[in-house]
Amino acid sequence: MPTVFNEDEELDLHGQRRVIDFLVDAKADGACVLANYSEQFSLTDEERDQVLRTTLEHAAGRIPVCVTTSHYSARIARQRTLAAQREGAAMAMLMAPFFGTTVRVDEDGVVEYFKRVTDGLAIDLMSQDAPMSPTPLPVGLLARLAAEIPQVRYVKIEMPQTADKLRALAAAAGGALPGLFDGEEAITLIPTWKPARERRGRLGGDPAPDPLREPPMRPPRHQGPDEGRPHHQQRQDQGPLGGLHPDTRAQLLEIAKRKDPLILHWA
Amino acid sequence: MPTVFNEDEELDLHGQRRVIDFLVDAKADGACVLANYSEQFSLTDEERDQVLRTTLEHAAGRIPVCVTTSHYSARIARQRTLAAQREGAAMAMLMAPFFGTTVRVDEDGVVEYFKRVTDGLAIDLMSQDAPMSPTPLPVGLLARLAAEIPQVRYVKIEMPQTADKLRALAAAAGGALPGLFDGEEAITLIPTWKPARERRGRLGGDPAPDPLREPPMRPPRHQGPDEGRPHHQQRQDQGPLGGLHPDTRAQLLEIAKRKDPLILHWA
Repeated sequence: MPTVFNEDEELDLHGQRRVIDFLVDAKADGACVLANYSEQFSLTDEERDQVLRTTLEHAAGRIPVCVTTSHYSARIARQRTLAAQREGAAMAMLMAPFFGTTVRVDEDGVVEYFKRVTDGLAIDLMSQDAPMSPTPLPVGLLARLAAEIPQVRYVKIEMPQTADKLRALAAAAGGALPGLFDGEEAITLIPTWKPARERRGRLGGDPAPDPLREPPMRPPRHQGPDEGRPHHQQRQDQGPLGGLHPDTRAQLLEIAKRKDPLILHWA
Repeated sequence: MPTVFNEDEELDLHGQRRVIDFLVDAKADGACVLANYSEQFSLTDEERDQVLRTTLEHAAGRIPVCVTTSHYSARIARQRTLAAQREGAAMAMLMAPFFGTTVRVDEDGVVEYFKRVTDGLAIDLMSQDAPMSPTPLPVGLLARLAAEIPQVRYVKIEMPQTADKLRALAAAAGGALPGLFDGEEAITLIPTWKPARERRGRLGGDPAPDPLREPPMRPPRHQGPDEGRPHHQQRQDQGPLGGLHPDTRAQLLEIAKRKDPLILHWA
């Protein structure tokens, strides 16, 4: 889930509740707050708490919520994880500790960190393997975390060659790690797709979970540009990638309309 | 300044006050809290506030205090910087925004960030150029920050070839950047040393400011191992580098004693 900000960069908690409502309507299998896609690194501790409480109160059991609780300090990551459990999170997601490009942790340090964070925890944990972290998480270490820590039952891979890493991890970890998630948005949907019995999933920051919800994709209900759908107000995204050229934007919307995602009606 | 922790990793604020007293006794020219050496990335926001208030209250004007206020968000870095000013800091230190190895900012973004943080600020700012940040700060950009932002009058360089970068920066920025600091601890003391009229300094995490305070170093008052100094309790450091071999420790202490640093008497 994105974190919703006002123009002055203060939290828009009303918008935060609307994202939950949208994901429920779009029949997403779950939601994840305070992730890196959520720009969690742009928030104060107090704002993190507000997003956590607002989301879980408003979800009210309609959709399971995962909360990212990463922090360099195991002590603080543990406090965050216990708070997520207390507020009703279904799962916590955790990166190995790092700071910047140079402050990283060795394999035994990563295992010790995950053990301290999860000691006595009742909910499941998803380990997160992301390229922004300089602390490496090779397949052997991810399998070791699952083997030694009962709460670690999910993993989210968002590295180059995610499909290959998920395949190797399924072989190395076996039943200790049933929840294998592709975190590369939808771009690796086909290479990582597997029958549902393996509990594989996709966890990304895309705003259209409904057409992507269950591969193979459902056949589109509408085709072509002329189905008379109302023109919705379009928020100008001036984020870190800069604005889109109007022609590019129009072409992307035409492509998106072929899949009829709920967000084009809902917003 | 180090942040002082108890064994359970909670803050030891009594210890924090003792570090200030020690630095005053050692005649350090200034102190810096919440730096990366202070493990600021191991603290909650509330703990940062406690360290800030405790240090400034206890310093009580006996020694000028610089406070690191870096955060990925310009909004939050500004809040931290204004809080430091309000509590009595003499200066704030700021890194350009980054997160992990991949979330970095371009040159115009860095300038905009520094402008937002310093708008209306009364105290001086030190820009920090550290290898842990993936956001590059070439000489031209550091000079531009000083030229466009009046509060940026100090810089701390802790990159490879710091001495060369300081020299290039002195040429590029001139009078706009009078406070050039070498942040490479004491290892580049000789290459970067210059007459005091250039206001160059050394800012590092070493516990012995007194023998290094003013190059050339003062002649040692004691030589050799047998001067009958009391044996002080020695804290076993089991930090990220692991413990020292006892022989190595003893040899390092013998070398340190030749410079007679205050910390060997004071602790």
